Amino acid sequence: MDLNAPRGTRDFLPEEAALRESVAGKLKEVFKKYGFVPLETPVMENIEVLSSKFAGGEEILKETYSLTDQGGRKLGLRYDLTVPLCRVFADNMMAKPFKRYQIASVFRDGPLKKGRYREFVQCDVDTLGVEGVDAEAEILSMVKEAFSSIGLDVKIKVNSRLLLNGLLEEAGVEESKQLGALLSLDKLEKIGAEGVVSEMQERGLTKKQAEKVMDVFRKAEKGFAFLEEIKNANATEGVKQLKELFALLKAYGVQAELVPNLARGLNYYTGTVFEVYLKTGEIASSLAGGGRYDDLVGQFSGKEKVPAVGISFGLDVIMEALKDHGERKNASSAKVYVFWIGDTKKDCIKVIQELRKAGIQCLLDLAGRGVSKNFAFASKQSIPFVLIVGEKELEEKKFTLRDMASGKERKLSVEDLKKELK
Amino acid sequence: MDLNAPRGTRDFLPEEAALRESVAGKLKEVFKKYGFVPLETPVMENIEVLSSKFAGGEEILKETYSLTDQGGRKLGLRYDLTVPLCRVFADNMMAKPFKRYQIASVFRDGPLKKGRYREFVQCDVDTLGVEGVDAEAEILSMVKEAFSSIGLDVKIKVNSRLLLNGLLEEAGVEESKQLGALLSLDKLEKIGAEGVVSEMQERGLTKKQAEKVMDVFRKAEKGFAFLEEIKNANATEGVKQLKELFALLKAYGVQAELVPNLARGLNYYTGTVFEVYLKTGEIASSLAGGGRYDDLVGQFSGKEKVPAVGISFGLDVIMEALKDHGERKNASSAKVYVFWIGDTKKDCIKVIQELRKAGIQCLLDLAGRGVSKNFAFASKQSIPFVLIVGEKELEEKKFTLRDMASGKERKLSVEDLKKELK
Repeated sequence: MDLNAPRGTRDFLPEEAALRESVAGKLKEVFKKYGFVPLETPVMENIEVLSSKFAGGEEILKETYSLTDQGGRKLGLRYDLTVPLCRVFADNMMAKPFKRYQIASVFRDGPLKKGRYREFVQCDVDTLGVEGVDAEAEILSMVKEAFSSIGLDVKIKVNSRLLLNGLLEEAGVEESKQLGALLSLDKLEKIGAEGVVSEMQERGLTKKQAEKVMDVFRKAEKGFAFLEEIKNANATEGVKQLKELFALLKAYGVQAELVPNLARGLNYYTGTVFEVYLKTGEIASSLAGGGRYDDLVGQFSGKEKVPAVGISFGLDVIMEALKDHGERKNASSAKVYVFWIGDTKKDCIKVIQELRKAGIQCLLDLAGRGVSKNFAFASKQSIPFVLIVGEKELEEKKFTLRDMASGKERKLSVEDLKKELK
Repeated sequence: MDLNAPRGTRDFLPEEAALRESVAGKLKEVFKKYGFVPLETPVMENIEVLSSKFAGGEEILKETYSLTDQGGRKLGLRYDLTVPLCRVFADNMMAKPFKRYQIASVFRDGPLKKGRYREFVQCDVDTLGVEGVDAEAEILSMVKEAFSSIGLDVKIKVNSRLLLNGLLEEAGVEESKQLGALLSLDKLEKIGAEGVVSEMQERGLTKKQAEKVMDVFRKAEKGFAFLEEIKNANATEGVKQLKELFALLKAYGVQAELVPNLARGLNYYTGTVFEVYLKTGEIASSLAGGGRYDDLVGQFSGKEKVPAVGISFGLDVIMEALKDHGERKNASSAKVYVFWIGDTKKDCIKVIQELRKAGIQCLLDLAGRGVSKNFAFASKQSIPFVLIVGEKELEEKKFTLRDMASGKERKLSVEDLKKELK
């Protein structure tokens, strides 16, 4: 029998699983500090919800796992956490603003390559019901703090779809060709200006248009001074929002960079877009990304328009970044390994229960191994301390604690052990 | 479009989701204290793994959701966390004892009734590689503490499959009919002695056998004194193990009750079995249950036998129990709702960032609402405090904090706010 996890999925053994759990836990703490609340939705969704035209788009739909339940209902595994959020909000119409986080697996039956999996965890944080860039500013401040809480220093890149569209209009690109041009522009860092110009021509722009686009964007990179000269209505509104956003970010004490060609892949963004990168730049992919999508929720409810902004953290790429920067945990989460010698098992249990009562993570020898095997096990599991409960120790009411790093041993009372191991 | 979660699955809105998250978090803390480490496995498994004859058995297999990936691989959604554990252990052969926990959704496409869902969360804790009842004793102590950490007082019922089989042999029940008899006996509390006797006859026992079984079990309920008189080899070994287990439990300071007819449904148990009930008895279902399954892991690896003991907590029934006993959280996890008056938004942001730095969960008005709307929102969300940052407050460097329960307002500096809201 094949004992591997299915192709494209993974088992996370304890060392990795503990680190993932710890990272997710720290992110959650920051989400809560900013007043976001959790939402849980099922792994399966009705296929009708997943395939509605305004959700993920053609490409993602092709990669949706589908199945049928015994009642003949057509279901699929969720491919993101945004569609379930929109569905639940449209169904329940919670008080606005509705600020939720969700950390959960999503599924895509797509081609595999390095860093792409068929089941992966997304950490999504979204604010529904706020029109102004107050929502963006808060989310970006939360993002900065979330990364800092796990020891990663990041830079934030920001842009506006309104500004992008405005600049493309300025360059004379017809509306039908704007999305294509925008996807090419998004690749500027990867394929260079010439690459962008030739890709835009493949997407149906004339050579003159493509060069004009590059020209406008080169100027745009010089910042707000240039941007304010543009008279295009979309661009003007985009610039106004970005300026307000940067002013709020200053109040939050958060730095961000305006990157006029930043577009992000998804169709549904309507305003601000942002991406978060490792500051040191060893990892080319973004660690998190998101933006404003004012039309999506309303399309689900069919009723009022509900403005929305969200960001998604990629747990896998974050774990990759932590491999280079963060500390790794020991295989066992235990602080101390405890074993007994002779006929003291039951007294040993009483000692370990005292330590656990004090909140100390303890691992007890369950197999009745000999002394040297016990030390070997504790060492292999990288447990920092070993505690020995023998008859002499019980008489003295002081127990032998070995520091596994230094090899030093001390005899300590239960009270002192609690202090030492806290 | 149908905006509900698929039939048999659920959305957990923030209030409920926060409570579930908090319960799972507290359970995890106790698991870790006892030296258990996390394991993560995929939602999908190869169907070959799920359908192997030694895993869940016919009944569960009928309820397995199956699907096919684009490469034509046959997959299924996991129906428990025990099979994935056995697969991963057989695949990796980690150091023994291997003590892991996993809290995750499992899926069963079965008939729906009250308290039964198609996606539900199990919290599993298992010890692999320990032959003696040391593993059982540790798990039961952990269970007691885990329930106590969430405010539930439980009673633990224990039995042994060895003892059960021995008692059935004593009553003259042929081996082929023992499993059936055992499943009937398990229902003693539900259907009474007469019910058990008549069900056993339906399962092929003679009336004489059935009555003998009941007779033996009535005596067994009188405890170890009677049990020790039995000369049957299985029963004697079962009694020996149970006595050792009860002695260890005493050292752990944990009470348990011997219930000689307790069997549990699954085929794969080989020794101790246990179930955990709410002490006050309002909820008839068990909150957790498990036992020893010494053959399962070895059947996956095809190599050495790996003794194993495990318990599974049902998150749904625990949430049901907490509805009666535990406290409910407020809808928002925020401690304080903050809004500004006039032109002080950016200063207000600076104040809220100071509070967040101190670890306080804050919710900021993102919509620029008026004073009364802000108070109404905070009240509706059951947020305990409201903080107002106006121009006068900024001048004085003291900010108005309203206690929403009493309606009292005080003016406090940022430092005092930190102390007050911690």
